[in-house]
Amino acid sequence: MSKLVPPHGSDVINELSLSGDHLIAELSKAESLPKITCSSREEGDIVMLGIGGFNPLDGFMGKADWKGVCDNMIMTNGLFWPIPVTLSTDDEDVQAGDEIAVVSGKSGDIIATMTVTEKYSIDKDHECKTVYKTTEDAHPGVVMVQAQGRYNLAGPIKVLSDGGFPAKYGDLYMTPMQTRTYFNDKGWKTIAAFQTRNPMHRSHEYLAKIAVEICDGVMIHSVLGGLKAGDIPADVRSEAISTLIDNYFVNNTVLQSGYPLDMRYAGPREALLHALFRQNYGCSHLIVGRDHAGVDDYYGPFDAHNIFDEIPEGSLVTQPLKIDWTFWCHECGGMSSMKTCPHKAESRVLLSGTKVRKMLSDGDDLPVEFSRPEVAKILQNYYASIKDEDKVEVKLSGHSAK
Amino acid sequence: MSKLVPPHGSDVINELSLSGDHLIAELSKAESLPKITCSSREEGDIVMLGIGGFNPLDGFMGKADWKGVCDNMIMTNGLFWPIPVTLSTDDEDVQAGDEIAVVSGKSGDIIATMTVTEKYSIDKDHECKTVYKTTEDAHPGVVMVQAQGRYNLAGPIKVLSDGGFPAKYGDLYMTPMQTRTYFNDKGWKTIAAFQTRNPMHRSHEYLAKIAVEICDGVMIHSVLGGLKAGDIPADVRSEAISTLIDNYFVNNTVLQSGYPLDMRYAGPREALLHALFRQNYGCSHLIVGRDHAGVDDYYGPFDAHNIFDEIPEGSLVTQPLKIDWTFWCHECGGMSSMKTCPHKAESRVLLSGTKVRKMLSDGDDLPVEFSRPEVAKILQNYYASIKDEDKVEVKLSGHSAK
Repeated sequence: MSKLVPPHGSDVINELSLSGDHLIAELSKAESLPKITCSSREEGDIVMLGIGGFNPLDGFMGKADWKGVCDNMIMTNGLFWPIPVTLSTDDEDVQAGDEIAVVSGKSGDIIATMTVTEKYSIDKDHECKTVYKTTEDAHPGVVMVQAQGRYNLAGPIKVLSDGGFPAKYGDLYMTPMQTRTYFNDKGWKTIAAFQTRNPMHRSHEYLAKIAVEICDGVMIHSVLGGLKAGDIPADVRSEAISTLIDNYFVNNTVLQSGYPLDMRYAGPREALLHALFRQNYGCSHLIVGRDHAGVDDYYGPFDAHNIFDEIPEGSLVTQPLKIDWTFWCHECGGMSSMKTCPHKAESRVLLSGTKVRKMLSDGDDLPVEFSRPEVAKILQNYYASIKDEDKVEVKLSGHSAK
Repeated sequence: MSKLVPPHGSDVINELSLSGDHLIAELSKAESLPKITCSSREEGDIVMLGIGGFNPLDGFMGKADWKGVCDNMIMTNGLFWPIPVTLSTDDEDVQAGDEIAVVSGKSGDIIATMTVTEKYSIDKDHECKTVYKTTEDAHPGVVMVQAQGRYNLAGPIKVLSDGGFPAKYGDLYMTPMQTRTYFNDKGWKTIAAFQTRNPMHRSHEYLAKIAVEICDGVMIHSVLGGLKAGDIPADVRSEAISTLIDNYFVNNTVLQSGYPLDMRYAGPREALLHALFRQNYGCSHLIVGRDHAGVDDYYGPFDAHNIFDEIPEGSLVTQPLKIDWTFWCHECGGMSSMKTCPHKAESRVLLSGTKVRKMLSDGDDLPVEFSRPEVAKILQNYYASIKDEDKVEVKLSGHSAK
């Protein structure tokens, strides 16, 4: 019997993806359906719905659910949900009652079919204000909402694509059913998810190791969907993380895996979504660091910690492991955090992302207190390999939400 | 409203100690009652009952409870309890229905009165086998049981003494009500207790800091009752711990405190008792290390971890933070544990207790990876101050349960 945390809002994971004959038949039928094209974020959501990561949703949200989620993080059926999951279009012809095919804006492939139950318009500023706490178009999540079509389409979907993730990432890409099987096979009951969109330096290793100390294992869970420009690509990141695991973690305490969503950079609301879908993946805990899923200064450093205390008890089974900013301190003689290191700032080895990227681009060694040499080498090689014009972009992207 | 864990088995802490006029009247009455003399372990239990640390017990256990606790860790009223709390005597005259006074074998003072509800004999070997997993008289807990009187006396008690702990230890000694008030005043909700009977080296600091990283605070909770011969005295230990806290912890993340029990060295069963009474003190977690509360090789290194999975769910609200053996590793370049360090044994700075005591006695410096210099200095001074014959005893007591 599994003792893993239950999926969110149901007893078993409900995968919306079709396979085998069902998939072939649906794809064939889909060819003749009216088509709408989806954005990268929407495609990530569709793939996530397909693998049960957004369990128990059966498709895209209608207006009442959209509003309930924006205003109170509650759907009309009482389900806790922190961020709207919606599909938009500018298509004037599609109407409630229609069956449609959803086409990937990236690949041009049909990736889902949907029975439209509702067509509605939203106040985009309202979504931005409630979910992102800002309407500024410097915020990448706001940009995504503002770029949506004039209408939202709601209804149950059938997912006809894996988004190409298994082909591209192989074993690194796992569905919630797969990670649950993995955890059960290992006999793990308590698993902390470590959310990352970056290679792991010693500060991240320290976070993951705290989790290993007190849980059965840690799942290092990378964003495989869209990122900001200038972020380290997923394959380089994954190689750097694998090298870290091989050299600095004990066997059978870590699983590296990835998930298909785009980052929304919604800070505290996204931290809740991160915990919610990690529950579907079977994780009992989510490591929530300083300014989790934030961008620039839109959120306070502990907003993503505090929001877990503000939601109704029982909203989520998966709980946060709240950890402060971490670093090496020379006076501590070890890794530490703002919560455990009482020493002066000058004793701490803290480098900005911009500084790190510049050092790596210039081929400089990172301090061993900041990054494992084996990891730094991989990142240096990456920066050495990219074109000069890319380097400039990378350097400039240090702080902004491009 | 407090959000601390509730006391064990009741909504509020029930202190059995009397104060003010009630105390004066009871002490006066007690003078004329038949007297029995208690052991050091029993005195610790009485003081603990007085301050509500053994909440919700109202006195010493009768035979059915003794048997239920030995066999299944359940009292007749359904309460979870892992170790018998009993009072013994060789007195032939005292009978059920008598009111008696209990006298400290150490101070000769009357420390409690008791209405005897039952007088019974036990199979001491049965208690040793079920609770201590051995009947060998090299086990200090077994020695205590075998040294008990022929009869056990059960019944509710009134506690008339604080055991001298507040006078001897001042603010270091806190009751469950006091620690709960302290935690509430600080706004802490999640507190991990760190059980110790030793000064804290870096391995212990690492355990406590893991707890600080993920909880609101840590309570370093020392045994102030009886120890094995050769252990560092409580005042020296407390000074060493205070120095560690002052130099290496952040303000308002640590409370150092102590409790009045003698160690029983019952390993896994005692780990459960340690969690149980920490629940009364308001702690949500108990750090449980390798061979917690064990002695020699009587228990497997993870018996005290595993037993928390073997008790019925809900037996305790306070949960274990299970952490493996910790140490500095040169290849990790930091503190680590058997669970997080993949490197070879030679890379790890591990010193036996015997070796540490010898180095300190000889005035040798401990490695900075093992002990903070400020802490080592205090211990060196202590060893320099004790008489030569004591030193010999200390040196010899490295591994045995004298």
